Amino acid sequence: MQPPFLLFLGDAPDIGWAKTASGLAQWRPEDCAGQFRLSGCRVDLGLPDMDFAAAKAAGVQTLVVGIANDGGFIADAWVPHLVAALETGLDLAAGLHERLADRPDIAAAARAAGRTLHDLRHPDRRFAPGTGKKRPGKRLLTVGTDCAVGKKYTALSLTRVMADRGMAATFCPTGQTGIMITGRGVAIDSVVADFISGAAEWLSPAADPRHWHVIEGQGALLHPAYAGVTLGLVHGSQPDAIVVCHEAGRAELQGYEGGFACPSLRDALDVHVAAARLTNPAARGVGIGLNTSLLSAAAARDALKRAEDELGLPACDPLRWGADAIVDRIVAEFGG
Amino acid sequence: MQPPFLLFLGDAPDIGWAKTASGLAQWRPEDCAGQFRLSGCRVDLGLPDMDFAAAKAAGVQTLVVGIANDGGFIADAWVPHLVAALETGLDLAAGLHERLADRPDIAAAARAAGRTLHDLRHPDRRFAPGTGKKRPGKRLLTVGTDCAVGKKYTALSLTRVMADRGMAATFCPTGQTGIMITGRGVAIDSVVADFISGAAEWLSPAADPRHWHVIEGQGALLHPAYAGVTLGLVHGSQPDAIVVCHEAGRAELQGYEGGFACPSLRDALDVHVAAARLTNPAARGVGIGLNTSLLSAAAARDALKRAEDELGLPACDPLRWGADAIVDRIVAEFGG
Repeated sequence: MQPPFLLFLGDAPDIGWAKTASGLAQWRPEDCAGQFRLSGCRVDLGLPDMDFAAAKAAGVQTLVVGIANDGGFIADAWVPHLVAALETGLDLAAGLHERLADRPDIAAAARAAGRTLHDLRHPDRRFAPGTGKKRPGKRLLTVGTDCAVGKKYTALSLTRVMADRGMAATFCPTGQTGIMITGRGVAIDSVVADFISGAAEWLSPAADPRHWHVIEGQGALLHPAYAGVTLGLVHGSQPDAIVVCHEAGRAELQGYEGGFACPSLRDALDVHVAAARLTNPAARGVGIGLNTSLLSAAAARDALKRAEDELGLPACDPLRWGADAIVDRIVAEFGG
Repeated sequence: MQPPFLLFLGDAPDIGWAKTASGLAQWRPEDCAGQFRLSGCRVDLGLPDMDFAAAKAAGVQTLVVGIANDGGFIADAWVPHLVAALETGLDLAAGLHERLADRPDIAAAARAAGRTLHDLRHPDRRFAPGTGKKRPGKRLLTVGTDCAVGKKYTALSLTRVMADRGMAATFCPTGQTGIMITGRGVAIDSVVADFISGAAEWLSPAADPRHWHVIEGQGALLHPAYAGVTLGLVHGSQPDAIVVCHEAGRAELQGYEGGFACPSLRDALDVHVAAARLTNPAARGVGIGLNTSLLSAAAARDALKRAEDELGLPACDPLRWGADAIVDRIVAEFGG
């Protein structure tokens, strides 16, 4: 998809729904020219609000649907706006389960305007079943107590720190936001179920023994909806190192309040490490990625300290204070 | 798909590859008129060998591709035969990942001959993400030490015994063979990964508190390729009762020899029960389905006894001696 981007926030009620847009704004800020919001939208990414004509005049190439809603559908209320964007001369990109191209009105408008539709959630290749065969190269996987706790940001941050230290490291996106940020990867939750671990094997192929594939986790093993995705990703990734992620202060699974408590860091790490050992008996925890954005600096320091005491592993808030301590641990255990 | 059927066995090297055909021959024998084999086929279901003209003359309506190969693809060598069947006036049915309708030569021949293509592996509806909410009604799920150990046959057998005793019981197929046998169900391994547990919830909806949904298991949690499918199925099924299945004498995972040992019955049961407790804290093991087809009667009796001693649960070979002992246990624990 061609930058610069205008980020479509729709009627997102909170930042969680706009996580694709906020990820792009965070990690490709130079390519994000503005935001487009419908009435009722409660999210503000701090970008200039633009209509489609102003965006086109400013050189914007693509309207990016920056929403990650439950079920990944295109809301009917968005459609007239998406059609108008095409008619104004913008391409469209989305990372939803429902394809832009499968909506007849959107497809017709794109054809009429000669614009391109990018459906980035949908793999453009087929995968084989997982083999379980160990591949050379080192792999780190981020896992979590829940969805949307910072697995992607932790993986991106770790990759940056490793690269800054001259280590060979590649970020492997497994969701639409990571794919939009990097232009690579596979939306692992959109693969046909039989091929989850096979797709994960494809994503981090055999590499130099000192190279790190840093793989973005998806879902959580103790989640009633998405654990299947997670388990296939764990088995196919064959991680040597696992970093467990959590949002400080979250007591219940998001969207499952009243039914499912967030597991402890200890339980979450243990269940993922145990699963990983099926395909890599040496898998182990190396750190904790804690999203402390809801806490004061003092409370955040306390939360990191408690997490370290609970697991005996370094804990970082990668966006707040960097992820160096986890990379220090990795270097100490695996070499630099 | 319209009976009677001619079962296409292709060049299947062993009965495992022809498990869809053998399942149909076992459970819908009245609808299976014959078999069609290519040179190199090493499977014989004991049905009359027929060419397409003879089958048509005998009233056959549908050629059923009875193969379940790794990856679920249509082999190029089959295509001229499938086209010839269409030209002879037969419909085609298959339960592969690759759609008959996606092969241009097969699709063109079906159009030209006015025949119907049935791609039964592909869900004809969309699913929502799993909710994790407990539904009324009782549920039994078969799980296994590996793929192709008897989970489907055990579930079918248990359903028959329950029905014979006047219990309300419904078999819920989760794979192409079960769908072909019953005309219902969902091929859970073909659902988009994000919706595995949601599809499983749909498959066994809320029911009378005394009704049993008997759900066919898929894959295995300790399998490097298919565990993601299994975990989503376990979470969405919310089983009250779990029956662990195994093929006596199988020491390694089929197709993964040299890499992965078959887990013990104890490990296999424990890992599935632990996973099930996320969405149903009362989940527990109630029996063992042991496929003893490789053993003499005396050795089979010994194997069943050893399995019972290992887990403290009744063990049956459902096809050899019935599944009554497991249903006895269910009645004792849950009422009749």
